[in-house]
Amino acid sequence: MFKEAIYHRPKDNYAYVCTNGELHIQLRTKKIDIKKVTLIHGDPYNWERKHWKTDSIPMKKSGSDQYFDYWFASVIPPFKRLRYGFLLNDGTETVCFTEKGFYSEPPVDDTAYYFCFPFMNKADIFQAPEWVKNTVWYQIFPERFANGNKDIDPDEVLPWGSEEPTPTNFFGGDIEGIQQKIPYLKDLGISGIYFTPIFKAYSNHKYDTIDYLELDPQFGTKEVLKEFIDACHKNDIKVMLDAVFNHSGFYFPQFQDVLKNGENSAYKNWFHVHEFPLVTEPRPNYDTFAFTPFMPKLNTENPEVKEYLLEVGRYWVREFDIDGWRLDVANEVDHAFWREFRREVKAIKPELYILGEVWHDSMPWLRGDQFDAVMNYPFTMNILNLFAKQTITAKEFVENMTNVIHMYPKNVNEVAFNLVGSHDTARILTECGEDLARVKQIFTLLLTFIGTPCIYYGDEIAMTGSMDPGCRKCMEWDPDKQNQELLSHIQKLIRLRGENPLLANDGELSFISPGEHDTCLAYTKSNGKQTICVILNTNSEAAAYTVPFDLNGKAVKNLWENEEIAFSGPELTIQLQGYGFAILVY
Amino acid sequence: MFKEAIYHRPKDNYAYVCTNGELHIQLRTKKIDIKKVTLIHGDPYNWERKHWKTDSIPMKKSGSDQYFDYWFASVIPPFKRLRYGFLLNDGTETVCFTEKGFYSEPPVDDTAYYFCFPFMNKADIFQAPEWVKNTVWYQIFPERFANGNKDIDPDEVLPWGSEEPTPTNFFGGDIEGIQQKIPYLKDLGISGIYFTPIFKAYSNHKYDTIDYLELDPQFGTKEVLKEFIDACHKNDIKVMLDAVFNHSGFYFPQFQDVLKNGENSAYKNWFHVHEFPLVTEPRPNYDTFAFTPFMPKLNTENPEVKEYLLEVGRYWVREFDIDGWRLDVANEVDHAFWREFRREVKAIKPELYILGEVWHDSMPWLRGDQFDAVMNYPFTMNILNLFAKQTITAKEFVENMTNVIHMYPKNVNEVAFNLVGSHDTARILTECGEDLARVKQIFTLLLTFIGTPCIYYGDEIAMTGSMDPGCRKCMEWDPDKQNQELLSHIQKLIRLRGENPLLANDGELSFISPGEHDTCLAYTKSNGKQTICVILNTNSEAAAYTVPFDLNGKAVKNLWENEEIAFSGPELTIQLQGYGFAILVY
Repeated sequence: MFKEAIYHRPKDNYAYVCTNGELHIQLRTKKIDIKKVTLIHGDPYNWERKHWKTDSIPMKKSGSDQYFDYWFASVIPPFKRLRYGFLLNDGTETVCFTEKGFYSEPPVDDTAYYFCFPFMNKADIFQAPEWVKNTVWYQIFPERFANGNKDIDPDEVLPWGSEEPTPTNFFGGDIEGIQQKIPYLKDLGISGIYFTPIFKAYSNHKYDTIDYLELDPQFGTKEVLKEFIDACHKNDIKVMLDAVFNHSGFYFPQFQDVLKNGENSAYKNWFHVHEFPLVTEPRPNYDTFAFTPFMPKLNTENPEVKEYLLEVGRYWVREFDIDGWRLDVANEVDHAFWREFRREVKAIKPELYILGEVWHDSMPWLRGDQFDAVMNYPFTMNILNLFAKQTITAKEFVENMTNVIHMYPKNVNEVAFNLVGSHDTARILTECGEDLARVKQIFTLLLTFIGTPCIYYGDEIAMTGSMDPGCRKCMEWDPDKQNQELLSHIQKLIRLRGENPLLANDGELSFISPGEHDTCLAYTKSNGKQTICVILNTNSEAAAYTVPFDLNGKAVKNLWENEEIAFSGPELTIQLQGYGFAILVY
Repeated sequence: MFKEAIYHRPKDNYAYVCTNGELHIQLRTKKIDIKKVTLIHGDPYNWERKHWKTDSIPMKKSGSDQYFDYWFASVIPPFKRLRYGFLLNDGTETVCFTEKGFYSEPPVDDTAYYFCFPFMNKADIFQAPEWVKNTVWYQIFPERFANGNKDIDPDEVLPWGSEEPTPTNFFGGDIEGIQQKIPYLKDLGISGIYFTPIFKAYSNHKYDTIDYLELDPQFGTKEVLKEFIDACHKNDIKVMLDAVFNHSGFYFPQFQDVLKNGENSAYKNWFHVHEFPLVTEPRPNYDTFAFTPFMPKLNTENPEVKEYLLEVGRYWVREFDIDGWRLDVANEVDHAFWREFRREVKAIKPELYILGEVWHDSMPWLRGDQFDAVMNYPFTMNILNLFAKQTITAKEFVENMTNVIHMYPKNVNEVAFNLVGSHDTARILTECGEDLARVKQIFTLLLTFIGTPCIYYGDEIAMTGSMDPGCRKCMEWDPDKQNQELLSHIQKLIRLRGENPLLANDGELSFISPGEHDTCLAYTKSNGKQTICVILNTNSEAAAYTVPFDLNGKAVKNLWENEEIAFSGPELTIQLQGYGFAILVY
């Protein structure tokens, strides 16, 4: 037995509580090393040998990545507390794994050996708003979606779509424009809009905030915004705004004051200044976002700054009834700030969604006290590597994704913000070498996977664009220039997702392990009664895929074509075109 | 290479920030598998191949337990943020370990592969009060330490020490008694008193609080307490009180109100009631501490309860200037409550020490947002197993202790509350079969180890006592019945600890790995300039211990005897009696 590979540490993704009273326990072991794992458990104050013997339950293998198998069990402790250990069998020996190490027999002289989940306090449970897991997001870069009011265009505005986007040009997109397109969004089927920043700022992307409490006049007035949010709500569309709290813009008056008055500024402690006076060259002598002198890092540990930003957080929820905050560069702001932020905004609207921008392992932000979700870029990276760049195999994809999924609790994965492109990346069609078939596959996966999918504006009509600023083109509104085939494909996927809760987050996701050279990627989502099986042929050649389950006696339907599949024998083989896919339900 | 054994996950004990600006990085690998580890690192926004090549630093092996080697490095990122990975060499191959897995070469196309410490925000740094690491604690069970005022004795008081302690008898210990003994405590050399509860309660142990804002009248008046704390402070002795916030006592008026008025009680949501009316038999129909109907669990998620308890926390700090709160059954109260508690009490007194009672792996409480330390019972367990029960070898002790130490950041270990007995365990002399030599060894280790040591009242004069209530005897004040030899031993250790910061927490602790059959346990503490070496012979037979370092040319002093050791040749061999010890300095 490879004991060194066995890992478990209570809390985080290894032991966590769900709102339904379940305590989920996860264990990691070396791949193909352990045959059987049994969870032995009991009440910490009533731990007797007979109890853990009768109360032990088998753990289920929930997935395998390149190096590890993951095991899962769910228990409902009657007194909301648990001591537990693991009995591991590798075919030749059984050992007991506890917090204090390995034993040939479960120790019985003291409960202190065992792992402890001391009490399942409600206040500590990770709980995202219930509506999130059924939401399909649509990301809008407001300057580029639709120009609804020419009167408020910036002075230097260019005719819509007349030029390629640059870091500095403007096309006049605004809130009224977006409001006029609500029918389009309803038709597409999305149920939430995520806006990149809309507060007063200098640039076209508005990440360089000048005033956090004002809407940028080029987007409209606050009245227009209110009306728009109201219209969205009437159309069952949630609205999420972008909060850039890590740094302000260069023209943020408080920063300008420090630039001008140095040590005498009332705002000198609003930033992280190394020395006065401030200089921007050769390198800024104050902390910045990246090395950008135009984005001075805010001192979120200063009570004044904290109160200012918390009021920003509260203001747009209280006055505009927004449904979510997306937090820019969230990983560089202190955890203490985010804990206060969560408390303050959820006190006003408990159903508010808090989404952090974190590109790496995000467990420290997803413990229930800070964010409801993060932007799932590890998901994006795997999608790109398999379908777009084609640098990994289906098997590697399954391994990588299994790894990503097992980094977090299940209730965290259900609301993960899954995206395949954003204002910060090249567009997915461009990443796929403009191969529409592969983009269709990607959306098929995105909209049938665990998590909350987001579509970057224009991706649904096959817009192209390389890295920022290329990915920030004006939305194409000429139906002849929109790819109606892709649009219909995505519309249908969203509709099917709405009609079949299993396609959203109601079931349990399992990958079907592909072989070394398999080109087909397949996974199931099941609630025990019904199973949906998604199969994607990641190769340009046609392929036959045999579903590795005994489907004898089951009625199998092709969900995409909405027709029964006639087959004989225990196994079902599906013919897939190059880059084709199938969605079965049985 | 055993890749499955390699573990690192940013934050917690694997990547954490110190107050001096250092970022500590830890890595775990299979024991004796990896020859060399190099930390490659760079700024997240300036990650170029040349940077990680020039900035890479070797990691140091900081210890080994039964299964793993641990590696350590410290860096000071110039922009307070870091991306990093590990180059591992096992003698035959070198691989690069990143957040995304293993690579034969460090990936250069994207920083996203690498582990990320996004920003070293001050607000998130674990920071215990500076004074704690130089404190020697003394735990007092107030009913049993000294009776200084007969007028306030409980009605049923027994003559001091006339009988064995029972769960229900009283001997009249009080605050005045303790105050009269301050000279004794000064003479012993301790610098902090940890009191078990002193608030109004029914029992002799006072863990069943009736009124959190009143001192129990059998201990004295608030004026007396104020005077006492003042006297302690004048004598450089800190005072820590015990807060029992997980549960109240049965006679807590709010609980009595619910018992009486059931659903109509204004306090019905102060507890976790399953159904009304409340019953205590056969099992309480409300959540309790363990299965004790007399200790109803408080609903710390109810804002009213929270405010009540937070005011208790603030009150004794504000009005009585206490220096620490020890939190009873801290692991069963929600994290959210403790975060608020920390914020509230530290706002009044930033140098307040917060000590949680958690017997198991405590990382989730020691992230800087909740406790400064926990009661280090895993330390206790290892001490008992080696010296008292003699069920493990010196080698196993080193492995277990290395494991415990590597579970936490270094700055957490420096203030770990190390104890070898308490009101909840048998006394250490009794555990050692009344063998004084072994008790002396135990105190030698306790007072020279990393962490903050605590002496349970009476252990220093060789009092005996089995598990509660046996360990709660009246303090022996007859000098003839006090073991003066042990008392002097402990006095001397405390004095040496005060005189030699290395014996406290100024140096780095390293175990000298013992062989399978070695009976001597040895460790060094070093600051680079000076080293202290503690050697303990855990066997009843005399032993010779050869210090495995080249000490040629060094002046080695026997710190205990305060004399130079004359020796020739590179190695120094020390003769130790059965259960003997030596403390060298060079």
